[in-house]
Amino acid sequence: MEYNLKSDFWTCAHQMADAARAAILPYFRKALVTTNKDNSGFDPVTEADKSAERAMRDVLGQLRPQDAILGEEYGHQPGSSGLTWVLDPIDGTRGFISGTPTWGVLIALSDESGPLLGIIDQPYIGERYCGGLGQATMTGPHWTRDLAVRHTSDLTDATILTTFPEIGTPTEKDAFDRVARACRLTRYGMDCYAYALLAAGQVDLVVEAGLQAYDIQAPIAVVQAAGGIVTDWSGGPAHDGGRVIAAATPELHAAGLSLLNGNA
Amino acid sequence: MEYNLKSDFWTCAHQMADAARAAILPYFRKALVTTNKDNSGFDPVTEADKSAERAMRDVLGQLRPQDAILGEEYGHQPGSSGLTWVLDPIDGTRGFISGTPTWGVLIALSDESGPLLGIIDQPYIGERYCGGLGQATMTGPHWTRDLAVRHTSDLTDATILTTFPEIGTPTEKDAFDRVARACRLTRYGMDCYAYALLAAGQVDLVVEAGLQAYDIQAPIAVVQAAGGIVTDWSGGPAHDGGRVIAAATPELHAAGLSLLNGNA
Repeated sequence: MEYNLKSDFWTCAHQMADAARAAILPYFRKALVTTNKDNSGFDPVTEADKSAERAMRDVLGQLRPQDAILGEEYGHQPGSSGLTWVLDPIDGTRGFISGTPTWGVLIALSDESGPLLGIIDQPYIGERYCGGLGQATMTGPHWTRDLAVRHTSDLTDATILTTFPEIGTPTEKDAFDRVARACRLTRYGMDCYAYALLAAGQVDLVVEAGLQAYDIQAPIAVVQAAGGIVTDWSGGPAHDGGRVIAAATPELHAAGLSLLNGNA
Repeated sequence: MEYNLKSDFWTCAHQMADAARAAILPYFRKALVTTNKDNSGFDPVTEADKSAERAMRDVLGQLRPQDAILGEEYGHQPGSSGLTWVLDPIDGTRGFISGTPTWGVLIALSDESGPLLGIIDQPYIGERYCGGLGQATMTGPHWTRDLAVRHTSDLTDATILTTFPEIGTPTEKDAFDRVARACRLTRYGMDCYAYALLAAGQVDLVVEAGLQAYDIQAPIAVVQAAGGIVTDWSGGPAHDGGRVIAAATPELHAAGLSLLNGNA
């Protein structure tokens, strides 16, 4: 891909992230009207979520009308370029309604092979993690830094993150627990921020299940750009969601996969 | 207590929090040398922790040399005023070394009856939650707001927070789980930030065990100033640490206590 096209994609992605920030922040830590998408669980959809996705789609309508869009709130819109913008305006809605600064705006640009670039944006802190098309950078309130995973090779030295201790099914929980027991430290509750911390070299593993494509495509791009590895639990591509393992190094990835798949 | 004395205390507390911020931030998200205080567990002590406590003690040496100090890193220093500054330079060291923005600097001023004022400061985000001596305010990157708990009265509408799903002993975990199962939403991993979110009206309950006095005195002051209730699991004072329940309303506090104590 030519350099100026790469630059155009990043310009567009940053404009989308800026628009989403502006749309979401007025709703953060206010009393929210939430509706349950799924009566069997607790999946709040906020006005902020919808407003941010509309704002991002407006930017795309102006700058990249030829691209397809897959968004959590407003579904799929076809395009003609072979490229798709994959959007989760608020990943971590439970965190959002609890006021935690761990939710994020997820933006990915993908072709049929997977994500080419990704942004994990945390509007309240004012942090943006960018990866792909030659970039691996975070900007935040105190500094701008290159993203790079750290070089942990043994699970006994590793910090592992996931959002809920339940993970998913009981089988999935058992699989996660096998990995977590082998690690030095397990932390919960970080939503998509976990992948940002992995890309920033702060933690070593993120393991989750039950993800959607729009939950994971931006994290894949950011983690891969920082030198990490993201696959599903069988070692295949993770960009369609489902069960995901993201690791700082090939050694941790292999050791994590082995435990996830029942080897003790 | 006279107004100008209240003001002096707050001036001193803010100077301490400012000094701690400046001492800690250069260490956050850098490769850290950690040492284990307790070989049986994982209790990292960072240079940041020690540096921040020294910085706060320096402020007290200049402004309030007559007060006693109880700090996590450097222990007890006697005073003559009947007042004690209770300091945890980095509450949530595991969060800190993982790069999460959920750790905080805890500062309380206490007499023998308990905390009179408290600060929960999050240096990376740039947020400060202040409660006591007539204040209940948070300042952050986007706004300054009064702190006030929300008016949730039923556990079925409540969001409950704690840091680790293990809580403490198996008995303590069972007790927590009885409360959590009755709540609408359970979230983990927030360290002292959980109490800030309770005081800001974002969540309804925080339940923890195994706390030290310096872990809880500042949160007590902030939550109480916002209209909430903090006790131990038997309903008595919590300022010596141990098992703590913090609730937005008397109804939630009573319902939580009942479940913690084995009533189904």
